[in-house]
Amino acid sequence: MPRRYEVIAVEGLPEVRPGDDVSRLIVEAAERQDTAIVERDVLVVGQKIVSKAEGRLVRLDDVTPSPVSVSLAAGIGRDPRLVEVVLRESRRIVRMDKTVLITETHHGWVCANAGVDQSNVDADWVALLPEDPDRSARDIRDRVRALTGADVAVIIADTFGRPWREGLTNIAIGLAGLAPLRSYLGERDPAGRPLQATVLALADEVAGAAELVMGKLDRIPVAILRGLVFAASEEGSKPLLRDPARDLFR
Amino acid sequence: MPRRYEVIAVEGLPEVRPGDDVSRLIVEAAERQDTAIVERDVLVVGQKIVSKAEGRLVRLDDVTPSPVSVSLAAGIGRDPRLVEVVLRESRRIVRMDKTVLITETHHGWVCANAGVDQSNVDADWVALLPEDPDRSARDIRDRVRALTGADVAVIIADTFGRPWREGLTNIAIGLAGLAPLRSYLGERDPAGRPLQATVLALADEVAGAAELVMGKLDRIPVAILRGLVFAASEEGSKPLLRDPARDLFR
Repeated sequence: MPRRYEVIAVEGLPEVRPGDDVSRLIVEAAERQDTAIVERDVLVVGQKIVSKAEGRLVRLDDVTPSPVSVSLAAGIGRDPRLVEVVLRESRRIVRMDKTVLITETHHGWVCANAGVDQSNVDADWVALLPEDPDRSARDIRDRVRALTGADVAVIIADTFGRPWREGLTNIAIGLAGLAPLRSYLGERDPAGRPLQATVLALADEVAGAAELVMGKLDRIPVAILRGLVFAASEEGSKPLLRDPARDLFR
Repeated sequence: MPRRYEVIAVEGLPEVRPGDDVSRLIVEAAERQDTAIVERDVLVVGQKIVSKAEGRLVRLDDVTPSPVSVSLAAGIGRDPRLVEVVLRESRRIVRMDKTVLITETHHGWVCANAGVDQSNVDADWVALLPEDPDRSARDIRDRVRALTGADVAVIIADTFGRPWREGLTNIAIGLAGLAPLRSYLGERDPAGRPLQATVLALADEVAGAAELVMGKLDRIPVAILRGLVFAASEEGSKPLLRDPARDLFR
């Protein structure tokens, strides 16, 4: 039997509100479609529903932009209140041009607008990234185990752009229960030569695999990877953060 | 029934040599493991076996490094003959530091060492990227159709690094039969607001999904995505190249 795994969309989740038990919504939706969660499933959960459940929402009417935000917003043609929220969520501006504001978030992720997003939330509100996406992932993992008895891995995912290549890809911003990287360091090819592609970002590939069934418009914020062989780990997402000293593009 | 697809490793391929019919090797290996290729499969094929079959191999003993290559190689502690090959495969050096040479290939891909790789080839040889990976993908697609009657999509994949995040991911450097990007431009969320994550790099997510069963040491250079819903297209990989004018990091 060849190595194989399946990617299953979890459909029919209701609109998520602050305080909702996202794990229960996921478990019940998976049961309703006859793909109940089982041991060693990997759950990929879109950041937006986690942020909503955790109340990581800001009403722009409640935001008073600083003079700096007003000035930067004029330069990129954006709402100064949005820019204010982005800067509050950032520890550094990485690049700015006529339309884009790329920052490093307090977690260390580099992305457009610090992950602050206006789509799929109520008008005049924005969603922030979860405060601690690794904790969000652990919470979902623990709650799913309590509800189903199944030990699963959980990835909190968001779609980020990257230099050089067009298009966004889904990547991991928080995780629990699996190793984010697979290192081949010190391993050799059949001819005995050291491998050159030494460290692979498995968690990001898992998030991308899930995105292919999730879609932006179909309200499918969760997918299950079933049958995937992965290494268990409690290290969270931090190994995916490139050390700024080793990053030529920061 | 929820949306779902399966990722299947194609195991048992022999060592590929220049002139080999890679498509036939893939078709036969898939049949041997009872996962014969069917209509609308997406085949993800690792760049290395394509390069080998196409004879894109260089023996370092046959390379005379230029003075520039000798000088640059000293700076990064590499073999001057390897640096010579990397520069021949490049149209621009994007960044250099003490250990890494990141260049833009003649195709326009930005990656370490222009994709020139010493692992999984004979000692003193290096493998180059295919000359035209889109053509390689089309050739495999046509040949698979001739052999099986099935119309498939094909992605030629390689593992590239990226700024800001640790670890490599598998991405598409050539493709045939599917649209590399999914654009949500002009579409709106349920509340009527324009979507912000507007263009997704599906082909890269497909390549990453495949990598999760491929592995570097197990001689599994091919995977099948089966059941994936995708848009057919003949545009190839070029839409994945970010326009340098729109790239803040080149």
